[in-house]
Amino acid sequence: MPPDATAPPVLVGLDWGTSSLRAWLFDANGYVLEEKALHHGILHLPEGGFETVLAEICTSWPGLPLIACGMVGSANGLRNVAYLSCPGSVSKLAEGLEVHPTKYGPIRIVPGFMERGAMPDVMRGEETQIAGVLALRPALAQNATIVLPGTHSKWAVVRDGWLERFRTFMTGELYAVLSQHSILGRLSSSETPDPALRADAFRRGVISARTETPLSGRLFSTRALVLTGDLTAGCAPDYLSGLLIGDEIQAGMRPESEPDMARVPVIAGEDALCARYRDAFCHLGYPEPELIGNTAPAGLFLIARKARLLTPEPSDGSFEEGQVA
Amino acid sequence: MPPDATAPPVLVGLDWGTSSLRAWLFDANGYVLEEKALHHGILHLPEGGFETVLAEICTSWPGLPLIACGMVGSANGLRNVAYLSCPGSVSKLAEGLEVHPTKYGPIRIVPGFMERGAMPDVMRGEETQIAGVLALRPALAQNATIVLPGTHSKWAVVRDGWLERFRTFMTGELYAVLSQHSILGRLSSSETPDPALRADAFRRGVISARTETPLSGRLFSTRALVLTGDLTAGCAPDYLSGLLIGDEIQAGMRPESEPDMARVPVIAGEDALCARYRDAFCHLGYPEPELIGNTAPAGLFLIARKARLLTPEPSDGSFEEGQVA
Repeated sequence: MPPDATAPPVLVGLDWGTSSLRAWLFDANGYVLEEKALHHGILHLPEGGFETVLAEICTSWPGLPLIACGMVGSANGLRNVAYLSCPGSVSKLAEGLEVHPTKYGPIRIVPGFMERGAMPDVMRGEETQIAGVLALRPALAQNATIVLPGTHSKWAVVRDGWLERFRTFMTGELYAVLSQHSILGRLSSSETPDPALRADAFRRGVISARTETPLSGRLFSTRALVLTGDLTAGCAPDYLSGLLIGDEIQAGMRPESEPDMARVPVIAGEDALCARYRDAFCHLGYPEPELIGNTAPAGLFLIARKARLLTPEPSDGSFEEGQVA
Repeated sequence: MPPDATAPPVLVGLDWGTSSLRAWLFDANGYVLEEKALHHGILHLPEGGFETVLAEICTSWPGLPLIACGMVGSANGLRNVAYLSCPGSVSKLAEGLEVHPTKYGPIRIVPGFMERGAMPDVMRGEETQIAGVLALRPALAQNATIVLPGTHSKWAVVRDGWLERFRTFMTGELYAVLSQHSILGRLSSSETPDPALRADAFRRGVISARTETPLSGRLFSTRALVLTGDLTAGCAPDYLSGLLIGDEIQAGMRPESEPDMARVPVIAGEDALCARYRDAFCHLGYPEPELIGNTAPAGLFLIARKARLLTPEPSDGSFEEGQVA
């Protein structure tokens, strides 16, 4: 059912990260009526800080319940919201919302998840994207692997409606620091290579992950391939990107390392990056995974609904939650 | 036999890298009579460039044959010396010396090695350290694995007097860029933790390499352990260092990835870094490897002697070369 232009808005949702902010105005069925994107991440605030940004969002939108996820709930954010323990569920996120008063009304902040143990892990923001995947594909709550590519990619295993476990791969940040600050970045040139050559360089990087040599022993091949003349300097960034993404996928899909990972994951996030991951899965011989786009707004809406922030309650059952706990 | 203070010098050797330069004055038996260390690596030259640095070294030393290794032989160096193909030998290095004229006489530059194939690799400078290991321990030429820790660590397999194969691990550079430019570096604090705590953090990082989760899926644990309170921020750099070095060692020692690697390597290079590697080998349950110090001067002398740059020829057989090809 398409959004009804006359439907009244009932909720404002914010995905407020380190470097940017996206805001959505929802109707009672969870449809997005309006969207705003600002560069004011929590480490890039304008004069006046958080309140100035909230003013920019809230003054043109009606006074409604506010819900936010992401680094806004960290020590450098609006309020340091304690992580919930993993395993966890969407209901636990709804129960765990912390309320922070602002000039524009109380804002509910979604907690992140923490997995303890010898090799602990944390997420903050991605729990809402995962909730969004389950809102849009309730059947996945039974048993699924969800991949959220990014600066700190997450591989999450959902089973029986619960987020059972997850693992962070620093793929995006490794690419950024190696491109900008290492000898591998100094290879890049001003040439703009042919898209087919770039795609081929990416593929070569990806399939190198099939070898037994681990990542740190393959990174330097980016430089060596340019020195041997087997790779143009302009294609080196694509090869490096393939090398890192391929390594992440081989690690995530390895049954002995993550015995609970379902075989074909769903990929959520920004379209261009998700498409690179889909290509990499195919280059490595895996079935093509489904891309589901940015699920943060659907996640914010589902959590807000479970927390009974919406008045009136949605009436049309547009989210069939199935087994979403 | 200790150096004879009255022995005349016969050779000047230079290890001229990207960020620094070390120079040695040798007697006819290969003993170092004097050493100089300058910060004038090829990317940190003073006004006047290479000639100014050579003046600083050569004016206080007699006019003698000059030999140099390292990035001085690269595109940004004094002369771009073509790589030799691997497999290669010390004799090939001696035959492959390229002569570059300077105000202080011709300087012979040692070529690096290049290994071709789907995953090519290069070294420039380390070939001389490897020659030095064989000069100091001729018996190793039969069959040995030599580890050269550094910005770009090298694992080299020597067999029947030849450098058979090698692999670069970007361990040192990964540590540098992650410490200086990633979220993992922003964890570090001004506290100076207890040495025992630091050693324990290093050990924990090292032994994490025993798990099946590959490096990119373990790096983020540096941050997560601080957030869970299991690691103090001041110890995070040691944990990260252990994580990277442990990963390199597990990869290098894995028989399926490098079937020719001899079981207990010899480690050559700067003492403090080599000691960290030795500790890491022990933490992972391997026998303690032998540390052999900086072998670059012994390598320069052996290559110069094989190239018949020394007049008169050494008389006392102080280097028993065994099967060094």
